[in-house]
Amino acid sequence: MLESNLYVALVHFPVMNKKNQPIGSALTTIDLHDIARASITFGIRGFYVITPYEDQAVLANQVIEHWTKGVGGKLNPFRKKALELVRVTKTIEDAIGSIEQERKEPVKTIATSAKETSGSITLKTLRQKLEDKASHVLIFGTAWGLADEMIDTCDFILDPIYGNTDYNHLSVRSAASIYLDRIINGR
Amino acid sequence: MLESNLYVALVHFPVMNKKNQPIGSALTTIDLHDIARASITFGIRGFYVITPYEDQAVLANQVIEHWTKGVGGKLNPFRKKALELVRVTKTIEDAIGSIEQERKEPVKTIATSAKETSGSITLKTLRQKLEDKASHVLIFGTAWGLADEMIDTCDFILDPIYGNTDYNHLSVRSAASIYLDRIINGR
Repeated sequence: MLESNLYVALVHFPVMNKKNQPIGSALTTIDLHDIARASITFGIRGFYVITPYEDQAVLANQVIEHWTKGVGGKLNPFRKKALELVRVTKTIEDAIGSIEQERKEPVKTIATSAKETSGSITLKTLRQKLEDKASHVLIFGTAWGLADEMIDTCDFILDPIYGNTDYNHLSVRSAASIYLDRIINGR
Repeated sequence: MLESNLYVALVHFPVMNKKNQPIGSALTTIDLHDIARASITFGIRGFYVITPYEDQAVLANQVIEHWTKGVGGKLNPFRKKALELVRVTKTIEDAIGSIEQERKEPVKTIATSAKETSGSITLKTLRQKLEDKASHVLIFGTAWGLADEMIDTCDFILDPIYGNTDYNHLSVRSAASIYLDRIINGR
């Protein structure tokens, strides 16, 4: 079992639409819940929700506030604990800045994608990188995945998740859960 | 990589509320999407959505129809392919009957739970059982999980999912995704 300085980020811009064009996506509030619950299960240090859109950031913060300070957290303290991990920023650079301030060290960025990308790293390689306790942020895209312009700025890109079929259209909630299990439980 | 006669079921009654009382839950339509997408990724034979409530069954069938026969499937053929795995029944017994008719053999039932249960089996044991190609159905509960009265009728109960913390409140969408990955990819 690996203890690491691992963070998670969920990006809403720039992501791809199904025609492979860069777009911005709307918030799906259940992403916050599911990925926060998976993050706390696997000991993730923080979960950044990234949207440049002011109204979407307001919505995200309303959800977080309801569960961390409002009546939601009183009714369900487990959900409160999970949602306390969530932070909203406008850009990935803002998230990286926030992590570097917290960790007092540079953070490495790891893109995820359902597509094959040349030079992508294996989970085993990522685990070796995590073992030196450096801070890393694992980045997920909403809609049809991270735009190439975002992937190109990342330090690494992780191999896609394979099942035992050629279907590679998991929800981002499922993909994040499976990646965290594979990374942290080391399988 | 394991090829198996594995089915998945999502139960809405009898499940538990947070006071550990048996209840029936309402359908969460995103469960159908996320668990169908995970199911098809991992080569699951069929995904049964189980609700005794007529209005909830109507809603489930409307969602399925929109994506398999309606405009949804034209816009997103990948979603169509996933939703084609979903079948709606009133009870787990109906689902078992349907699987036995399809497979022409008895089906073993495997309950899942986030709680420790004495006599629960490991993933390794389950994989050994699947290797003989017998038909199995992996059963998930909505709300706060399967009611004891449902678990008691199952042939096996599977060990809970652990991360590296004591938090055990994954969403059913995350739990199903992680279990399928662990079972099929054998880790």
